Amino acid sequence: MSAWRAVILAAGAGTRMRSATPKVLHPVCGVPLIKHVLASLHDAGLDQPLVVVSPDADALRDYLGDTVDYVVQTSPLGTGHALACARELLEDKIENVLVINADCPLVPAGAIQRLMACHQESNAELSVMTTSDVEDAGYGRIARDASGNLTAIIEEREASSEQLAITEVNGGVYAFQSKSLWPGLATLKPSPKGEVYLTDMFDVVHRGQGIVATVTTDDSNDVIGVNTRVDLAQAEAAMRERIRIRHMLNGVTMIDPSSVYIDSDVRIGKDSTIHPNTHLLGDTQVGEDCHIGPNSVLQSSTVGQGCKVVASMLENATLEAGVDVGPFAHLRPGSHIGEGSHIGNYVEIKKSTFGHDVKAGHFSYIGDADVGSKVNIGAGSVTANYDGSEKHRTTIEDNAFIGSSTMLIAPVRVGKDAATGAGSVVTKDVAAGKTVVGVPAKPQDKTSKKKPKKT
Amino acid sequence: MSAWRAVILAAGAGTRMRSATPKVLHPVCGVPLIKHVLASLHDAGLDQPLVVVSPDADALRDYLGDTVDYVVQTSPLGTGHALACARELLEDKIENVLVINADCPLVPAGAIQRLMACHQESNAELSVMTTSDVEDAGYGRIARDASGNLTAIIEEREASSEQLAITEVNGGVYAFQSKSLWPGLATLKPSPKGEVYLTDMFDVVHRGQGIVATVTTDDSNDVIGVNTRVDLAQAEAAMRERIRIRHMLNGVTMIDPSSVYIDSDVRIGKDSTIHPNTHLLGDTQVGEDCHIGPNSVLQSSTVGQGCKVVASMLENATLEAGVDVGPFAHLRPGSHIGEGSHIGNYVEIKKSTFGHDVKAGHFSYIGDADVGSKVNIGAGSVTANYDGSEKHRTTIEDNAFIGSSTMLIAPVRVGKDAATGAGSVVTKDVAAGKTVVGVPAKPQDKTSKKKPKKT
Amino acid sequence: MSAWRAVILAAGAGTRMRSATPKVLHPVCGVPLIKHVLASLHDAGLDQPLVVVSPDADALRDYLGDTVDYVVQTSPLGTGHALACARELLEDKIENVLVINADCPLVPAGAIQRLMACHQESNAELSVMTTSDVEDAGYGRIARDASGNLTAIIEEREASSEQLAITEVNGGVYAFQSKSLWPGLATLKPSPKGEVYLTDMFDVVHRGQGIVATVTTDDSNDVIGVNTRVDLAQAEAAMRERIRIRHMLNGVTMIDPSSVYIDSDVRIGKDSTIHPNTHLLGDTQVGEDCHIGPNSVLQSSTVGQGCKVVASMLENATLEAGVDVGPFAHLRPGSHIGEGSHIGNYVEIKKSTFGHDVKAGHFSYIGDADVGSKVNIGAGSVTANYDGSEKHRTTIEDNAFIGSSTMLIAPVRVGKDAATGAGSVVTKDVAAGKTVVGVPAKPQDKTSKKKPKKT
Repeated sequence: MSAWRAVILAAGAGTRMRSATPKVLHPVCGVPLIKHVLASLHDAGLDQPLVVVSPDADALRDYLGDTVDYVVQTSPLGTGHALACARELLEDKIENVLVINADCPLVPAGAIQRLMACHQESNAELSVMTTSDVEDAGYGRIARDASGNLTAIIEEREASSEQLAITEVNGGVYAFQSKSLWPGLATLKPSPKGEVYLTDMFDVVHRGQGIVATVTTDDSNDVIGVNTRVDLAQAEAAMRERIRIRHMLNGVTMIDPSSVYIDSDVRIGKDSTIHPNTHLLGDTQVGEDCHIGPNSVLQSSTVGQGCKVVASMLENATLEAGVDVGPFAHLRPGSHIGEGSHIGNYVEIKKSTFGHDVKAGHFSYIGDADVGSKVNIGAGSVTANYDGSEKHRTTIEDNAFIGSSTMLIAPVRVGKDAATGAGSVVTKDVAAGKTVVGVPAKPQDKTSKKKPKKT
Repeated sequence: MSAWRAVILAAGAGTRMRSATPKVLHPVCGVPLIKHVLASLHDAGLDQPLVVVSPDADALRDYLGDTVDYVVQTSPLGTGHALACARELLEDKIENVLVINADCPLVPAGAIQRLMACHQESNAELSVMTTSDVEDAGYGRIARDASGNLTAIIEEREASSEQLAITEVNGGVYAFQSKSLWPGLATLKPSPKGEVYLTDMFDVVHRGQGIVATVTTDDSNDVIGVNTRVDLAQAEAAMRERIRIRHMLNGVTMIDPSSVYIDSDVRIGKDSTIHPNTHLLGDTQVGEDCHIGPNSVLQSSTVGQGCKVVASMLENATLEAGVDVGPFAHLRPGSHIGEGSHIGNYVEIKKSTFGHDVKAGHFSYIGDADVGSKVNIGAGSVTANYDGSEKHRTTIEDNAFIGSSTMLIAPVRVGKDAATGAGSVVTKDVAAGKTVVGVPAKPQDKTSKKKPKKT
Repeated sequence: MSAWRAVILAAGAGTRMRSATPKVLHPVCGVPLIKHVLASLHDAGLDQPLVVVSPDADALRDYLGDTVDYVVQTSPLGTGHALACARELLEDKIENVLVINADCPLVPAGAIQRLMACHQESNAELSVMTTSDVEDAGYGRIARDASGNLTAIIEEREASSEQLAITEVNGGVYAFQSKSLWPGLATLKPSPKGEVYLTDMFDVVHRGQGIVATVTTDDSNDVIGVNTRVDLAQAEAAMRERIRIRHMLNGVTMIDPSSVYIDSDVRIGKDSTIHPNTHLLGDTQVGEDCHIGPNSVLQSSTVGQGCKVVASMLENATLEAGVDVGPFAHLRPGSHIGEGSHIGNYVEIKKSTFGHDVKAGHFSYIGDADVGSKVNIGAGSVTANYDGSEKHRTTIEDNAFIGSSTMLIAPVRVGKDAATGAGSVVTKDVAAGKTVVGVPAKPQDKTSKKKPKKT
């Protein structure tokens, strides 16, 4: 017999979500509800849990694959019935069963571990996680006697007004000893509506003189259960708050934390400031001493030390140290910007590498380009990289000077120290040190004394 | 005699708003305070209310027109005096008077109806709407005896510290029987400051052994009264919260509800996600399975199923299904974008229709244009639609390819499958299948093998 | 002997900030913590305070200069020890010492003045500022006897669970009489950890039958002390809330105050509306009847009456009355926009003056330019102001018409009523009333009947 196995109850219909997506696949901080539960179980040492699903759980099975085992609850007859469906798979194999709802994304691994430890140390037949001062209603109340022993778990809809005033509630995470669980479940009577409640197991254990233990979690958000999109937003807020506090305590300043959205895997260096209305998503990394935001979205991007990103969007982009971006810049996937470069307003970059100290300060589109160092790109410049069927690359070598509204008709190369005149349409390579002007661009008249101009 | 008539008290000076606009015309969720009161009265079956106004109420009369009747309170002598001004118009014509302040935008029709029903069922001479646990001070306290009968309404400024601790407050909505109201009002004594308080009617009814009824509303926001811009912000927040909760319960996900601003008439399809800092205003409609935001403003726009709008502004624009917009796009009035089209960064569109599968991915201005399907619009393209005096239209037919930084000098037509070279200035129509290049654009040399290029 | 001197305790290590910057130099609302304390002391009449610093306080000394005097606490031995370091400088010179922590940015001058007044009127040896209902833990509890006399200040870590339930806490601002302070400090015993607590002075005074006075501040935010970035965010939020309420009570509407960020010196005219997610920073001034935001950042900018700024960024820019900006515009330093002008989407302006009624509605870059009145600037226009080494100015005179995608190669002048064709590259001055077209631009053929076109 193994000591522990976790069972996740995921067969609920979730009709109050009013969604074509199964409830437990709705994301919190970008990750489905049930995945958060799996992560906590994993961190608590409980891998390969058994998931009780409804018959039409294809999407859920597709998502979870074989990281879990499945058992089907053929009819929605309540949580007690759901767990009973697992009897055949677990009885005689598992000593203790940890039961958790799939819609509780905030239960910490530590709380699960404390519940398991307490359950074993107290030789309890049933252990319950409780909490106090939950904001919203809906939770069963924990009744205790004068000695503090749990005497009943009262479902809210069956609670008297006196019982409703109890602030300690059932957190919906349980540990059971198999030896009393499976026989006990078989004795539960269905409610008038035909549902068998798992919480009725308390009476069974109580009547049988078994030990009931409780473990209390201080943060009532730990047990938030998601039944509606309002609950979903509450869970999202609680989880984001936890992530933000972690970063703040690590040395990150946030002007208005409530408007900062950070995914769980993001890393942020010390003494960086995240300004309001900023999203750091995916596996974004931000170095030290940066200013990110306001109004910026960084999706899976890497930002070096001492960078500044204002009112801009970065997607799978990389900034080396000391890069200054924005406002209103858009770095699309494959943008790699070298140290000390400046990317100004209305600049779109895609699949391009920039050397160090490049200046692209004004509206322009640079796609599929290899840009050297100390290049200056004028306002209105465009890499015409698409001929209607294929994309071609543009190369701009070190110290080149791209005049305003230059059209670079790829594939094309502008050599080192070369320059293009404002409004030129560059259809052929420009040799190092040369200047081209016109439509199409031709080498500048040698007698001209005017240097090319740009912004 | 009619059974009911509503009287709206709107003669207050509203000096604490510090505004050139009359207080009751200040908007909450885009709609003036008094309009919300009128809407609730209408929904409660009380049309054509009588509005007590100050002598200088031209702006208010202009706004309300003849949807209400008016009576002038010539001097600001308090709420009791204000109602007394209506005596001549209502006495002998109306059995019951529903009195409400014009600055209470959140009183629900249902609460008004419950007050009216209770008033009649209990044969009360005076019925009062009360609530508990209001956040801010300023409300009269409801004193009750041991049996729960109302014994006094105590104005906050006259309350003892014991009375201040009472959590049940006067919501400022009353129902009166005319038979005791009008004689009673005439007996009220002015305060030392010369004001006659309507709440003193409670004493009159109480002394006359008349029945006083109370109806309690659970949500204390119902009775928020607006006296300052701080109150106004509080009312706005409460109303927006109600709207958001309605949408969430209907199946709309909001990552951070507190940063989502939805006007009351907006419709949103199931399984759409509204990202942070997003405004859905006017009569905007959003289809199912959309992602709107972050950082987007949709003003009176229609968005089809499965669309994505990121960091963009839409004004009176229409997106068919599967359109992808942004970031930093601006669709101005009259933009109609066909199915599956992509509108990218820094694209401005105005009074233009796009067919399906158009790609306008980069900075450009398309105004007064009719664009066919599968058209590709290069970076920097401009419809030069204005000659200094008139606007002209541009037509781009199916599958045309507009090269980067093409100037389309309207009126002009680019035919089906035609193309323009990068940097071309198109002053004449381009025939179907033809390519033009240059400034001004001319048909491309037949010997050229190069296809035009664009972004 | 002078009556009063303030001592600021600033020698704490601040390790929980996890920062390379000294704790008291971390900004709240853009201003370092200690500067807020200095400002409150100044307003309370306490200039040139004595600041107790650690030995490595170079950054702090550089910041504060000689506006304060310094005394060094050579070892971090607690607040009592820190104050004792000031003995030599103050004893025999100062009658009363006001002690305040450098990390308490929200203590109002008025509360300090009340503490000082109470201290003197009651002839107290020690006076303490207290408050109630603080959100977070960490403060010493104020124990009182049945008569309300202070009997102890209990550090949180030493408080019993009963004492922890006390809601009145030590605000960390003290007034001492020198005559008992200095001898008393010398008698304090260090804690087991070797720290001498200033709060132990209460026992000294109490035992000596000296008078202890307390002054209570109603707003518990007054005493927020910053030890972590979480505290810093809380202080920022509280200070910004105060600023917003001040503006709202002065007649400014905020749709969602919590997303509006206003620096302390900003001025906003009556009946202006600040929309969500808007930053008014530095010494920005906004006139009456403006709409600013959503999603706008105004840094040290001046906005005239009746302006509208949507989703744009202004830096050291000036708008005269009735200017309409945005969305997605960027006015950089030195932008001065004349009355009634319209600056549309994707317009970048820098070091340029615009006359009245200029229209620059579409993507473009105008830098180092002097633009007259009623000028129309087409989409894609660029002032090519930089030749790779120097910047040059562009002049556009009244009523000129700049065609779409015109490149203005500075230095260059476009005369009054002159026009440029779409896509023209203007390398030479354009005479008044003349039209130029082409690359490079030349006077238009006289036989042409076409007027130049722009957006």
